[in-house]
Amino acid sequence: MSMNTFGHLFRVTTWGESHGPALGATVDGCPPGVAISEEMIQQWLDKRKPGQNKFTTQRQEADQVRILSGVFEGVTTGTPVQLMIENTDQRSKDYGDIAEKFRPGHADITYWQKYGVRDYRGGGRSSARETAARVAAGGLAREAIKMLAPGVEITGYMTQVGPHGIDRARFDWDQIAQNPFWAPDAEAAEAWATYLGELRKSGNSVGAVVEVIARGVPAGIGAPVYAKLDTDLAAAMMSINAVKGVEIGEGMNAATLTGEDNADEIFMGNDGQPVYSSNHAGGILGGISTGQDLVVRFAVKPTSSILKTRQTITKSGEAAEIITKGRHDPCVGIRAVPVGEAMMACVILDHLLLHRGQVGGQIGENRGKIG
Amino acid sequence: MSMNTFGHLFRVTTWGESHGPALGATVDGCPPGVAISEEMIQQWLDKRKPGQNKFTTQRQEADQVRILSGVFEGVTTGTPVQLMIENTDQRSKDYGDIAEKFRPGHADITYWQKYGVRDYRGGGRSSARETAARVAAGGLAREAIKMLAPGVEITGYMTQVGPHGIDRARFDWDQIAQNPFWAPDAEAAEAWATYLGELRKSGNSVGAVVEVIARGVPAGIGAPVYAKLDTDLAAAMMSINAVKGVEIGEGMNAATLTGEDNADEIFMGNDGQPVYSSNHAGGILGGISTGQDLVVRFAVKPTSSILKTRQTITKSGEAAEIITKGRHDPCVGIRAVPVGEAMMACVILDHLLLHRGQVGGQIGENRGKIG
Amino acid sequence: MSMNTFGHLFRVTTWGESHGPALGATVDGCPPGVAISEEMIQQWLDKRKPGQNKFTTQRQEADQVRILSGVFEGVTTGTPVQLMIENTDQRSKDYGDIAEKFRPGHADITYWQKYGVRDYRGGGRSSARETAARVAAGGLAREAIKMLAPGVEITGYMTQVGPHGIDRARFDWDQIAQNPFWAPDAEAAEAWATYLGELRKSGNSVGAVVEVIARGVPAGIGAPVYAKLDTDLAAAMMSINAVKGVEIGEGMNAATLTGEDNADEIFMGNDGQPVYSSNHAGGILGGISTGQDLVVRFAVKPTSSILKTRQTITKSGEAAEIITKGRHDPCVGIRAVPVGEAMMACVILDHLLLHRGQVGGQIGENRGKIG
Amino acid sequence: MSMNTFGHLFRVTTWGESHGPALGATVDGCPPGVAISEEMIQQWLDKRKPGQNKFTTQRQEADQVRILSGVFEGVTTGTPVQLMIENTDQRSKDYGDIAEKFRPGHADITYWQKYGVRDYRGGGRSSARETAARVAAGGLAREAIKMLAPGVEITGYMTQVGPHGIDRARFDWDQIAQNPFWAPDAEAAEAWATYLGELRKSGNSVGAVVEVIARGVPAGIGAPVYAKLDTDLAAAMMSINAVKGVEIGEGMNAATLTGEDNADEIFMGNDGQPVYSSNHAGGILGGISTGQDLVVRFAVKPTSSILKTRQTITKSGEAAEIITKGRHDPCVGIRAVPVGEAMMACVILDHLLLHRGQVGGQIGENRGKIG
Repeated sequence: MSMNTFGHLFRVTTWGESHGPALGATVDGCPPGVAISEEMIQQWLDKRKPGQNKFTTQRQEADQVRILSGVFEGVTTGTPVQLMIENTDQRSKDYGDIAEKFRPGHADITYWQKYGVRDYRGGGRSSARETAARVAAGGLAREAIKMLAPGVEITGYMTQVGPHGIDRARFDWDQIAQNPFWAPDAEAAEAWATYLGELRKSGNSVGAVVEVIARGVPAGIGAPVYAKLDTDLAAAMMSINAVKGVEIGEGMNAATLTGEDNADEIFMGNDGQPVYSSNHAGGILGGISTGQDLVVRFAVKPTSSILKTRQTITKSGEAAEIITKGRHDPCVGIRAVPVGEAMMACVILDHLLLHRGQVGGQIGENRGKIG
Repeated sequence: MSMNTFGHLFRVTTWGESHGPALGATVDGCPPGVAISEEMIQQWLDKRKPGQNKFTTQRQEADQVRILSGVFEGVTTGTPVQLMIENTDQRSKDYGDIAEKFRPGHADITYWQKYGVRDYRGGGRSSARETAARVAAGGLAREAIKMLAPGVEITGYMTQVGPHGIDRARFDWDQIAQNPFWAPDAEAAEAWATYLGELRKSGNSVGAVVEVIARGVPAGIGAPVYAKLDTDLAAAMMSINAVKGVEIGEGMNAATLTGEDNADEIFMGNDGQPVYSSNHAGGILGGISTGQDLVVRFAVKPTSSILKTRQTITKSGEAAEIITKGRHDPCVGIRAVPVGEAMMACVILDHLLLHRGQVGGQIGENRGKIG
Repeated sequence: MSMNTFGHLFRVTTWGESHGPALGATVDGCPPGVAISEEMIQQWLDKRKPGQNKFTTQRQEADQVRILSGVFEGVTTGTPVQLMIENTDQRSKDYGDIAEKFRPGHADITYWQKYGVRDYRGGGRSSARETAARVAAGGLAREAIKMLAPGVEITGYMTQVGPHGIDRARFDWDQIAQNPFWAPDAEAAEAWATYLGELRKSGNSVGAVVEVIARGVPAGIGAPVYAKLDTDLAAAMMSINAVKGVEIGEGMNAATLTGEDNADEIFMGNDGQPVYSSNHAGGILGGISTGQDLVVRFAVKPTSSILKTRQTITKSGEAAEIITKGRHDPCVGIRAVPVGEAMMACVILDHLLLHRGQVGGQIGENRGKIG
Repeated sequence: MSMNTFGHLFRVTTWGESHGPALGATVDGCPPGVAISEEMIQQWLDKRKPGQNKFTTQRQEADQVRILSGVFEGVTTGTPVQLMIENTDQRSKDYGDIAEKFRPGHADITYWQKYGVRDYRGGGRSSARETAARVAAGGLAREAIKMLAPGVEITGYMTQVGPHGIDRARFDWDQIAQNPFWAPDAEAAEAWATYLGELRKSGNSVGAVVEVIARGVPAGIGAPVYAKLDTDLAAAMMSINAVKGVEIGEGMNAATLTGEDNADEIFMGNDGQPVYSSNHAGGILGGISTGQDLVVRFAVKPTSSILKTRQTITKSGEAAEIITKGRHDPCVGIRAVPVGEAMMACVILDHLLLHRGQVGGQIGENRGKIG
């Protein structure tokens, strides 16, 4: 990844600040012929946008995406696609009192130290608002994947809020769209609602864990050693604001397993394709997909913009206190779900293209046959 | 990262298979004038090499590095440095019986499916032998860091073997070099020795967690949004063989913390530099270093090459059993410690250069002053 | 360069079609603190824009640039700068009759063959309109250069129109801004006016040669072997629409010179800096700047959009005739002058940053001293 | 291109100095399954190597290439291929007297100024010896092209030595391999032999022009706007030592042509493929191949290492004289012919892969059909 661009062939460059006129994604390398419209992308932005429910930030943004280039008569041309979202509800006055102070836990201080100039309004470029551009790019990636690898399905959901996890025995795909948390466990969703309601009233916040699954991904994508599929997924998720940990498959828990327990044994399936006894690997071996579900998890830290006084310093080096007023998000992890899905889509598409570039063949076709 | 190269300005391309004539690292973009010799690099390879103690693989490799270019009269010239390590002890016959079978948990099957050809000897390119090249590159990076940012210290150690973690209350830096596990806790080292001795006898293996700390890193390095310092560290560690999870600071545990508990408050230190009340952030905010210790952790899964029979298939799609004979590593995570240190060094150097490229200034000097 | 992005640290991605809603440049890696405004960039666009004089295309575009990100309180923040130009005067009906035909000498046929979809209006992405985005990016680069290397001056001019060249004995810098051709030779300017007037009436067109000089560039920039300064300049100029040849210094003529005549001998100047007896090298040796004037020349072919009937085929493979109606440019090379300047600025800035990234030091300071 | 690597998917990193232990090319991204051996590559190195005839440098290098990785059982694995060439005949004493002086026309002074350290033996990294690594990589590229696009033929030859050009009316492909100049005109070859014999006796040198043609390249490769095929070819050729100009098709002469004369009109051929009335475009329109011959030319300046005294300075800033003793090349352009062919091969292969990556399809198949 290079500064503000990620991807090898499907290359996304995001731009824009929280309180600037607009933000967006310049998407280069999209295959031609992908049917795309503003509506197709908008649905994913609507899933992400603030003001959506009482558990996420109350900023009201229309988040209307415009396609400014790269599409002609309803399909991509293979030239760069500019996806722009205008900022409409900045409410600068909510942030005006922190021009001089550095909010603890935010990038205010590091952006200042590094660049010597910072757009303090809403966190400027460090704001999670940047993720709207990713979600737009992810919407385009999804449509390209539909065209190239129609069996792929990408779904994100929350598995943990604070110390409260889901019960995987109650896992139900249909629940995900039924509650404000994209929780696949209805009981957990209720518990979280109560828990977050209290947190919100007390002006505090908490972290969360998001899991993103991709089903139907062909085996064989990923480019070892440094563009391994898991490497690119780790980078993609870690680049999301407030993420502090990324896991593939068993994740950190793999450390506790023995070799006997961890290995996914291999058998021939009925359809002449290899099948595995389990999926501790999370769908990736040696950085290349196995054809099993890709399983990625990431932890989002709690926001530091809370309604409690924190100690900090000013630019001139004086001690100060700071407290967030106005909008406050008890759990920013919730809005990371569509962002994680978008990143998964972009990385998968990128690797489908990268594989056919270096190795060739039809998408889904393996150069090395088995059987 | 692009296929077999990582880094933006300090660019490392590794090459070589486990049983080929040689392997190495082509290092491009090293600053000129860095004092370097084969001995300076060799010390880090010696730390990594197999046959070192009874807990790691018994393959006897001299792992002698040769510098073939980019150094003149004892200093780097600024041109590519070729670091080559010849393979001397391949023992092909140990692997000859798996030309047709795919070892579960390894990349044999995915390399076959992707490329349609695979060097099955010792795992070919997917072998952890590739990490010797990284360690060599890391040795060069360390010397460049000594020249450019002399206060930086990079240290890796193990914090967990299987389910057994260290006790951080007993953390002792001096212990790290005193035991075969680079454990900073003498009691844990003893417990691990017993545990792994039993595992080894039973032909099994287990995972581990490695932590790498970098102290004295200047604030302000890291290039948001997609070359954030934590993004590049996550990618670097996830690219290491058998890694399944990466954490920065609190890592996955950040999900359980509240905003009140997680934020590191900011104060002015005696030396006119900001200091923080804690370091949940792991030294990175918004993808940029804060000047605090960089704290990175990664989990290594247990090797699947164990002395127990596993179910698998052959290239022709027939069911088969497989068992590893000969060399067997009860805990591959041990050798990942110097590899993690090497990756940390490469990423830090890369970002020191990237920062001075885009922003300028002396290394360690912040463009944005405080106080 | 990677598809629609050029540059290593100062990275410019252009987007937009001739008849789309807008076009622009996403500029990543600009140093922070550069004073910039829309007016500062607009001046360069005004120099380029169509409808400016009777020798260039009569399309009337305001070419108003808007800065949508990356600038705060009048200076760059170090985050991506989005420069957008809205298309206002597309006149689709001028092109409507070539949806099915491929204009000879244009990219219509190759875009169709490659992508299977093409925006035929005005040449879509292949249109020289894309160069407006480059000129905008060049305007930003110029301001960054002013801040980092204030002695640098970049000037472009025409040295040849059709078979008629300037007389270098009459070279006068002050003439460049005095005629519609940016010709440094007043007599040549008059001759060209007559010549092009006739060409225009007869519906024909002709090629041209543009030369761009950069004075005051510090010695030592350029990154051998594959990011040599001349390599990047050649790529930059060759990427401009209709360019068919690029020269550095003596250029193609270097083939006719003997070693005795071609070498620029070296002496010590009064200010303790090396000086050269001549500049056949065009300011570059071994891909690195010498401190002498950088001299780059490129040839622009004549446009094929002329008011003469040409033979071609349709998408369905039938023979057809085609003739351009409406707007017609007798010499597209004229508008390439500000584009060449913009590319020179972008490449120089990129290399100033790249040098200080890998080698360090103050801009203009050489690591290797002489004297 | 990034410092010492060129290519997007087929990525070549060269390393090594003229008088170091070895030099080579690390080739990443080669498609798997390409049949390759050291002999297949050696033939191209033999074409290039010094000591071959009395018109090129008398240094005797075996230039034996070794394949150290990335090949298994005679085919590429898709992992990095290390091609190494050991230096055997350095004759350091021939260069020992210029440790302190800068040879005019060479990169000695600029490498010193930039890096503050230089390997002065034989020009170090700036030596044309580096091109041996390119030729090795080109040998591998040729084999990959044979597998993927078997109709492609790449041929280089000289069209001009000093002021003496070939007569295109006498152009004969069979002559190219029959004389030491790769001249396609037997009479020109004789004239050049006489001319260079005199130059060599007088201790002088002269420049040359090399032309490289690629026939049978499918239409549709090239990635506008900044990875246009001509952009990458220009960069590739300009990066060769001593090159000062690059042309595509008509090249600089395109400036003198009118639109009526320059356009290549389009017709349907008998085989249902478009054909063109002429090829002023050199096989490229809008940066994408047309299916016609790719025609690239580059000018090589005369070497400055001649047996005539030149004025220069020393590192300490004192005036000095310098004269080359021993080996001397009257026309370095001759050895650039196989280098130009190698670059053409690498760029074409890279673009075949890039096209199938972004757009898909079988190589040679156009997404946009005609007829």
